Amino acid sequence: MRTLIRGTAVIGAGGEVTPAMDVVIEGNRFASVVPAGRAQGPFDRTIEGEGRILAPGFVNAHTHLAMTLFRGKARDLPLMRWLEEEVWPVEQKLTAEDVRWFSLLGLVEMIRSGTVAFADMYFFMEETAQAVEEAGLRALLSYGIIAPTTDRIEPELRKAGDFAREWNGAAEGRIATALSPHAPYTCLPELWTKATGLARELKLPIHTHVAETEDEVQRMRAETGRSPVEWLEGLGAFSVPTLAAHCVHVSEKDCDILAAHQVTAVHCPSSNARLACGIAPVADMLKAGVNVTLGTDGPGSSGSLDLMREMRLAALLGKLRQQDPQAISPEVAFSMATQRRAAALGWGNEIGTIAAGRLADGILVAQQGAHMVPGYNPLTDLVYSAVQADVRSVFVNGRMLMDEGRLLTLDEERITAKCRELAQRYR
Amino acid sequence: MRTLIRGTAVIGAGGEVTPAMDVVIEGNRFASVVPAGRAQGPFDRTIEGEGRILAPGFVNAHTHLAMTLFRGKARDLPLMRWLEEEVWPVEQKLTAEDVRWFSLLGLVEMIRSGTVAFADMYFFMEETAQAVEEAGLRALLSYGIIAPTTDRIEPELRKAGDFAREWNGAAEGRIATALSPHAPYTCLPELWTKATGLARELKLPIHTHVAETEDEVQRMRAETGRSPVEWLEGLGAFSVPTLAAHCVHVSEKDCDILAAHQVTAVHCPSSNARLACGIAPVADMLKAGVNVTLGTDGPGSSGSLDLMREMRLAALLGKLRQQDPQAISPEVAFSMATQRRAAALGWGNEIGTIAAGRLADGILVAQQGAHMVPGYNPLTDLVYSAVQADVRSVFVNGRMLMDEGRLLTLDEERITAKCRELAQRYR
Repeated sequence: MRTLIRGTAVIGAGGEVTPAMDVVIEGNRFASVVPAGRAQGPFDRTIEGEGRILAPGFVNAHTHLAMTLFRGKARDLPLMRWLEEEVWPVEQKLTAEDVRWFSLLGLVEMIRSGTVAFADMYFFMEETAQAVEEAGLRALLSYGIIAPTTDRIEPELRKAGDFAREWNGAAEGRIATALSPHAPYTCLPELWTKATGLARELKLPIHTHVAETEDEVQRMRAETGRSPVEWLEGLGAFSVPTLAAHCVHVSEKDCDILAAHQVTAVHCPSSNARLACGIAPVADMLKAGVNVTLGTDGPGSSGSLDLMREMRLAALLGKLRQQDPQAISPEVAFSMATQRRAAALGWGNEIGTIAAGRLADGILVAQQGAHMVPGYNPLTDLVYSAVQADVRSVFVNGRMLMDEGRLLTLDEERITAKCRELAQRYR
Repeated sequence: MRTLIRGTAVIGAGGEVTPAMDVVIEGNRFASVVPAGRAQGPFDRTIEGEGRILAPGFVNAHTHLAMTLFRGKARDLPLMRWLEEEVWPVEQKLTAEDVRWFSLLGLVEMIRSGTVAFADMYFFMEETAQAVEEAGLRALLSYGIIAPTTDRIEPELRKAGDFAREWNGAAEGRIATALSPHAPYTCLPELWTKATGLARELKLPIHTHVAETEDEVQRMRAETGRSPVEWLEGLGAFSVPTLAAHCVHVSEKDCDILAAHQVTAVHCPSSNARLACGIAPVADMLKAGVNVTLGTDGPGSSGSLDLMREMRLAALLGKLRQQDPQAISPEVAFSMATQRRAAALGWGNEIGTIAAGRLADGILVAQQGAHMVPGYNPLTDLVYSAVQADVRSVFVNGRMLMDEGRLLTLDEERITAKCRELAQRYR
């Protein structure tokens, strides 16, 4: 199968935009990226790229997809009250069927907003994995381990390990797996040590929550004399590749530790704002050499799985936090939002760049809307002005998932109807 | 002309949502709002409201519409550098034709994102007024007075007064006018006194910029011993109804002054974030009794005229500033975004409520998208989850401006093409 995307603008690795290129996809990889008119046929399919910008697609590096079930449900509360009063009681009632359908719902929203890969941690993960297999995205999936007592350690680890073994490399390699102790405050040190050991053995990354609230940091310091980052380092948790969601309250020393261990921090600005956790020190982390990516967190707190929103918000909040309009440039916000920084998800530099030989993931974004005119600087417009509906086409691993707004792998009407029906139980 | 909107959910004045209502429009007013099936025919036209939510429409209480010409052009700089290096030199070259077409461009974007009324201050305002007349929105328009030297006072006042007299009440009453001394730091005290006198004589409000940056406040304090708000009060400027854009750096005393004079503060979160001006103390202003509305500011700084974005951002930033997730509820964010708080624009309580006898302005928002499911709480979803494309239909003064995504008053293709052509000069 050879596909030509004809005459499209292409966003390069540094955010620079080259107009009028022909991009050829063969199988699941880009075969060539050449000036318009130079691509060698024949082609099985031609996609018109004029007036479009081809970008590598967004990566949502931290979410809980099936929490679409919680969208608009919970009150806006501080994190611990939000979890204890609004989330955990409802999660006790969750079924595998809920997770299947609300994962599919989230996948529809992600495709529509140009997300091509994501990292997800939740329960009934085989349901999410099957939904990903069907939808066609890439995902790093993990079962969320909660082990505050010794008796929970073995059963939780077994569950997490079984899922990780079974699904790693599935769906033509589009699914990777991780181990996910939920957070320092929900898992005993012994769990952390064992989980890290298992991750090393299975060659898997760890995906967890770190330093989301000031309260979490203060408690950890009071109990152990260490910050959550120091505590995790002390347990050897960072000896395997780690995705650390949030990192809102990290010290200069924490930043150095995260950088030294090449931890990937996942900034989740909407969720951190809505629960009033704070603004993560993204500029400081970047300066210290930490790899920072973006996530929506679950749609229960963010309200949305649209990573373009997080990209815009990350640029705006980064400037506010530093009191410097040049703190987070559109180029940096874009790099945080895309696969370029998302090596930790499991595909290294095979993804994130539109170049011959790389895996063919990408999105075509329309530039015609009034809100994108005059178009002096397509990247700036993409960060500050573009809206979800500008994402017209999405492909992953060489396969079209959305073509000019038409979903090709998922039945949106059936999924939304089913989710409305299932949600009746939770009203 | 009698129109029935059949079986729609309706958002009430307090943000509460009533499902399944019939709404009748006669001429330019709502004639009745009754449970579905109860409206008395015959009707000249029926609009299907099922799966839609009818809201009063958004009000953009501070913008410079024709600055769509600057979208994506300027670097992200601190306000004064941004104005001096990026904006003012380009504005020297602006023509009436530019303002006409870039105003039309902004009007397309505003209709598409559900804005029904706005307050605009700029140059060549007769062009913007003609564009508003054509587009069908409501607008409070004013010529932006810059008078840092004595010789500028009379010519600027004349220009501002002539425009205000000529256009006040035009376009079937959809256009109101104001006087707009640009800011305390760009206009002499004498200008402020005379402009206030003229506003009183003509019964017009004042629309200006106040306390946008910390630097502005510090300079004013150093020069006069007063804050900008105190300085304006001292000159009697608040003795006429005033729209004060930004109010980012206002003290407790300033808040009391704004409240005492019933000044309407216009919070512009995107622009204030992008230029790193800061986060306005919205919760403090509201607590002090200040009427707070929302604006995008010009799309040169905000990148966008989409007021739904400002509504979401206002809720998020309000929580961050107060470190309290309950600081700005979805209901409060919604009230800031809609006509309910926008009496200062010139239509009092004639607009902003969907009730018999009120002027018929409103928008129909789709609730079907995956990103709006399950839909436990339509108002929360509207604030945190809705996207521009969910706005399906827009009407103002009883006239449809957009019907299921189709613009009825403006030729989008012609406008965007013309704006791209005119922008060539500024590349």
